[in-house]
Formats: sequence, C-alpha cells, structure tokens
Amino acid sequence: MSTSFKLPHRGWLFDLDGTVYRGEALIPGAGETIAALRAAGRRVAFLSNKPLDTRADYARKLTRLGIPTVADDVINSSLALARHLRRLDPGAPVFVIGEPPLVAELRAHGFEVRTDARVRWVVIAFDRTFDYAKLNTALQAVRGGARLIATNPDRTCPTEDGEIPDCAGMIAAVEAVTAGRVEVIVGKPSPIILEVALERLGLPARECAMVGDRIETDMVMGKRFGIATVLVLSGITRADDPRIAEVGPDAVLGSIRELFQTT
Amino acid sequence: MSTSFKLPHRGWLFDLDGTVYRGEALIPGAGETIAALRAAGRRVAFLSNKPLDTRADYARKLTRLGIPTVADDVINSSLALARHLRRLDPGAPVFVIGEPPLVAELRAHGFEVRTDARVRWVVIAFDRTFDYAKLNTALQAVRGGARLIATNPDRTCPTEDGEIPDCAGMIAAVEAVTAGRVEVIVGKPSPIILEVALERLGLPARECAMVGDRIETDMVMGKRFGIATVLVLSGITRADDPRIAEVGPDAVLGSIRELFQTT
Repeated sequence: MSTSFKLPHRGWLFDLDGTVYRGEALIPGAGETIAALRAAGRRVAFLSNKPLDTRADYARKLTRLGIPTVADDVINSSLALARHLRRLDPGAPVFVIGEPPLVAELRAHGFEVRTDARVRWVVIAFDRTFDYAKLNTALQAVRGGARLIATNPDRTCPTEDGEIPDCAGMIAAVEAVTAGRVEVIVGKPSPIILEVALERLGLPARECAMVGDRIETDMVMGKRFGIATVLVLSGITRADDPRIAEVGPDAVLGSIRELFQTT
Repeated sequence: MSTSFKLPHRGWLFDLDGTVYRGEALIPGAGETIAALRAAGRRVAFLSNKPLDTRADYARKLTRLGIPTVADDVINSSLALARHLRRLDPGAPVFVIGEPPLVAELRAHGFEVRTDARVRWVVIAFDRTFDYAKLNTALQAVRGGARLIATNPDRTCPTEDGEIPDCAGMIAAVEAVTAGRVEVIVGKPSPIILEVALERLGLPARECAMVGDRIETDMVMGKRFGIATVLVLSGITRADDPRIAEVGPDAVLGSIRELFQTT
C-alpha cells in the first residue's frame, strides 16, 4: 500500500472555514491529509479572508484540532492588508473599522491607529462592532482626504448559526456616504493575499495549489494567478453549482480527504 | 404699497433645513413670507425627508422660531412611509433601522414593530443608532422573506458641525449583505411623500408650488410631478451649480425672503 496525491505540487494553500474545519469540527480526513503532505516534504500554509482572530488564534485552533501549526503558517486578510499598506504608506495614521486583532496587526506593522478622523487611510474590515459613530468618522476622514482600503469582499460569513453580515456591508455603507471608492481589497480573490502566501511557502506560483470551498474567492484567485486549483464540496459550494464549469478548477473533490489516496 | 408673490399658486410646500431655517436660526424673511402667504389665503405645509424628530417636534420648532405651525402641517418621510406601507400591508410586523420618532409613527399607524427578524418588512431610515446587530437582524429578516422599504435617499445630512451620514449608508449596507434591493424610498424625490403633502393641502398639483434648496430631491420631485418649483440658494445649492440649468426650476431665488416682494 502506498500513498499518492492527485496533484504533484510542492506548495499547498488551504482555505480554513469549510475546507479544513467547519466551526469547531475538523473536516474528516483533514488531519491525515495535512500530516501526509508534510511528511512527504510538501509545504503547507493556511489562507483565510477572516480578520476576526489573530493568526496565532487560528494556529492554536488548528493545533487544538490536531493540525500542529505556527502563526506564521496562517495568512489572513489582516496580515495581507498590513503588508500591502506598509508598502504604500508606511507608518501612516489610519482609522480602522475592524476588530482588535486587525488593529493589533496594523500596530505590529508600524501604523498609527487613531480613533479620530485625522488619518490618511480608512481601513474597512469585517467588523461585528460596526456602528454609526465609525461610519461618521470614516465620512469625516474621507472629507479630509483619507483613502479607503478593505480586507475582504465577502457579503456574508457562514457560522454555525447561519450567515452573518461580512465586510461587504461595511464597504457599501462607507462608499455610499462618502461617494468614494475602496481602492483595493486585499483578501481573496485579490493576488495581494496570494503573494504573501507564496512568499511564506518560498515557492513560485507554478509549484503551488490552492484548496478551497468558495468559487468566487479561492478558485477565482487561483485561476487568475495561474496556480493549481482544487475545489472541495465540504463547504459552501454545491456540486450542481453552474459556476464550477465556468471557472473550471483543476480538480473537484468531495473533501480534503480525497486529496490523500491509498491505493 | 402692495404685496405680491412671484407665483400665483394656492398651495405652498416648503422644505425645512436650508429653506426655512438653518439649524436653530430662521432664514431672514421666512417668518414674514409664510405669514404673508397665510394672510393672503394661501395654504402652507412643510415637507422634510428627515425622520429624526416627530412632526410635533418640527411644529414646535417652527412655532418657537416664529412660524406658528401644527403637527399636521408637517409632512416628513416617517409619515409618508407609514401611510404608504399601510396601503401595502396594513398591520404588518416590521423591523426598523431607525430612531424612536419613526417607530412611534409606525406604531401610530398600526404596525407591529418587532426587535427580532420575524417580520414581513425591514424599514430602513436615517439612524444615528445604526449598528452591526441591526444589520444582522435585517439580514436574517430578508433570509426569512422580508421586503425592504426606506424613508429617504440622502447620502449625508448637513448639520451645524458639518455633514453626517444619512440613510443612503444604511440602505447600502443592508442591500450589500442581503443581495436584496429596497423596493421603494418614500421620501423626496419620490411622488409618495408629495401625494401625502398635496392631500394635506387639499389642492391639485397644478395649483401648488415646491420651495426647496436641494436640486436632487426638492426640484426633481416637483418637476417629475408637474408642480411649480422654486429653488432657494440659502441652503446646500450654489448659484453656479450646473444642475440648475439641467433641471430648470421655475424660479431661482436667493432665499425665501424674495418670494414676498413689496412694490
């Protein structure tokens, strides 16, 4: 008996929610698949649009669920935004529509996070503490010349209790009142977050594969960037979704378990 | 010496902010103009998109500033929404993104205002207490089949301290996360609020004029409905605004004072 992988790539990027786990439960076979990839010398990193937890939190969760992971192996939209904005405008004063883990990531990258409108950037993220006062501060900041940047384009976020509003709600509110436009959204399907991930893997795009459950982010990003794409049906996408044929992932699997085959 | 009016109409509708007063100060001549119109047997009502105060509050403010007014002479977007929705779905359970005066108006019109998502309508208004929890309740309501209706389309609201986010921010957030569309916005420039005002005046449209400071609401509404339009430059619109020529109000005056001429 030997183990083999459907795709020969040296670097593997995994989405989290719906791909590696659902809520607090590991997708069956995820632990074995990741362990086998690592044992075979493949490099693995995790890629999430969610800015609600720190990368260390995600690493601890994966480790607790049986996939030992360090924070540096987790790339989320907070990290991608902080890295990208550091290239555009290092140390800039910023106002954040977002939660404490994003604020911490921005501070760790040298930004001056302010609570007033005297800033050069308004950072917009999935924020369960979004309110009118933040919307007003964003408006005043833009009237003072601030630019807009956002973490992720998702409309809603699946939870164990159903979908809840995601970053698209905050982006739409700010754009509507300011009459401005978000200049860049760094999360999937943007190449910005993928570049950060490839840098972590230390491999060129052609040697890497993206495994995820969302067509409009995971698969579209992979296709745009020319990396291999594996759609798993363990999350939000149903097998009869017509977009599967349109986007054309390199493989469509029931779940991460099928990446690892015993023959 | 005699007094005359530039336009012969029997019914006069006045916008409030920027037309009759600015903040707590009456526009010079507003009191005399309204008093002269009334003395000449013309009918006067006030028309505002703002759902932040009750109609009684607006009437008290006008009275305090020297224009004796009863609540029934004030038509705002809360009243227009309550009247319109009562025709569409009387007594329906509703969830309100809005402030207490709107909730009171809906209750007074027989609606069941709920704080959970088990509703047939989500009412979206200018709401300085808007937050993520309300956005989430709106999402859950729409997922359960609720429809969307809104008070007013304004992007921002001028205040003495500058502009603050108005209803367009709340509408955009809800539409973005629900992927739904607001079916109707009752406030100016909708004919819905104008119909309520004409009913109050008891006059046909051809005998009425609209006086206001906003092109995209006051003037556009009047033009669409075929009532006379008077733009005043005492509020948000500047004399060099190219939209003045595009929309073509029947008269453009420095302020309400010029409606009343001594010859």
